Amino acid sequence: MKNNLGKIHVYTGDGKGKTTSSFGLALRAAGAGYRVCIIQFMKGQDYSELKLLKSLPRVSFQRFGPKTFVIKKGKAEDFKQAKKGLAYAKKVLTSKKYDLVILDEVLVAVFFKLIAERDLIALIKHKPTKTELVLTGRRATPKIMALADYVTEMREIKHPYQKGILARQGIEN
Amino acid sequence: MKNNLGKIHVYTGDGKGKTTSSFGLALRAAGAGYRVCIIQFMKGQDYSELKLLKSLPRVSFQRFGPKTFVIKKGKAEDFKQAKKGLAYAKKVLTSKKYDLVILDEVLVAVFFKLIAERDLIALIKHKPTKTELVLTGRRATPKIMALADYVTEMREIKHPYQKGILARQGIEN
Repeated sequence: MKNNLGKIHVYTGDGKGKTTSSFGLALRAAGAGYRVCIIQFMKGQDYSELKLLKSLPRVSFQRFGPKTFVIKKGKAEDFKQAKKGLAYAKKVLTSKKYDLVILDEVLVAVFFKLIAERDLIALIKHKPTKTELVLTGRRATPKIMALADYVTEMREIKHPYQKGILARQGIEN
Repeated sequence: MKNNLGKIHVYTGDGKGKTTSSFGLALRAAGAGYRVCIIQFMKGQDYSELKLLKSLPRVSFQRFGPKTFVIKKGKAEDFKQAKKGLAYAKKVLTSKKYDLVILDEVLVAVFFKLIAERDLIALIKHKPTKTELVLTGRRATPKIMALADYVTEMREIKHPYQKGILARQGIEN
């Protein structure tokens, strides 16, 4: 198959479906024969999808995040993990071994200042021409959106959190 | 695992990520041990993700749509396929064999009047209590959104179609 990839996607906004969209895209791309690398930021916990994601052919998966959900301002471990994740992403992109690279929640890591915006921008600018790159997370910055080809905002119109429903395993995480 | 499912999700809007989100959710739910049934409306073509989706454990997949992309107003085959899809969805839901049922693009089928809104509403109202139901497609109607627990609008902020890029296999379909 001819590789006509190379675009940059941003999935942002407060609504559901940013991470799941990127995983659905991984499934689609791997199904089409592309090699996919998913790098998750801010997430060190065990998510339900990991087992199946890791079992897919042509899909590589790596997480860089704290073991708990709580991000504390200025916590050294969070910075260290985010920095490791970014270095790994650079290695993966420059290796040119993957057709689709997904940096899940990297935009949140920028929002929490665990990653400097300029460092992510430098990474994006060094993306190989033929690699499709997906960035997800709330609060994408204007500069990063300006670099993207596709920007989609997931807008929350209605959510049962408002009625006190907690995140459920297998659906929300 | 305790089944604490039973919510209704709507993914709508003109942006990317409605179908891929539902597939990512399928991956997550199946990874958590839930049984998933995906029913696609309006799509009879071969999509890249099908091969891998079908290979996932606990995931069943069925499509009801025309073999070509073109939906012609009043075309008998399109009505027939949509009707068959809805009947199948009813069978699947009432069987209670699945924890998560995804009706992909069903909202577009309603928009094109291939399915009557009242028929989809009747189906939603007969959903078993413990079944999680996902409806995707542009132009969700107010009545259907009112029945949903989660409504997410995928808003297109930026898209290279504007620059004349066509849909690419493995990314857009």
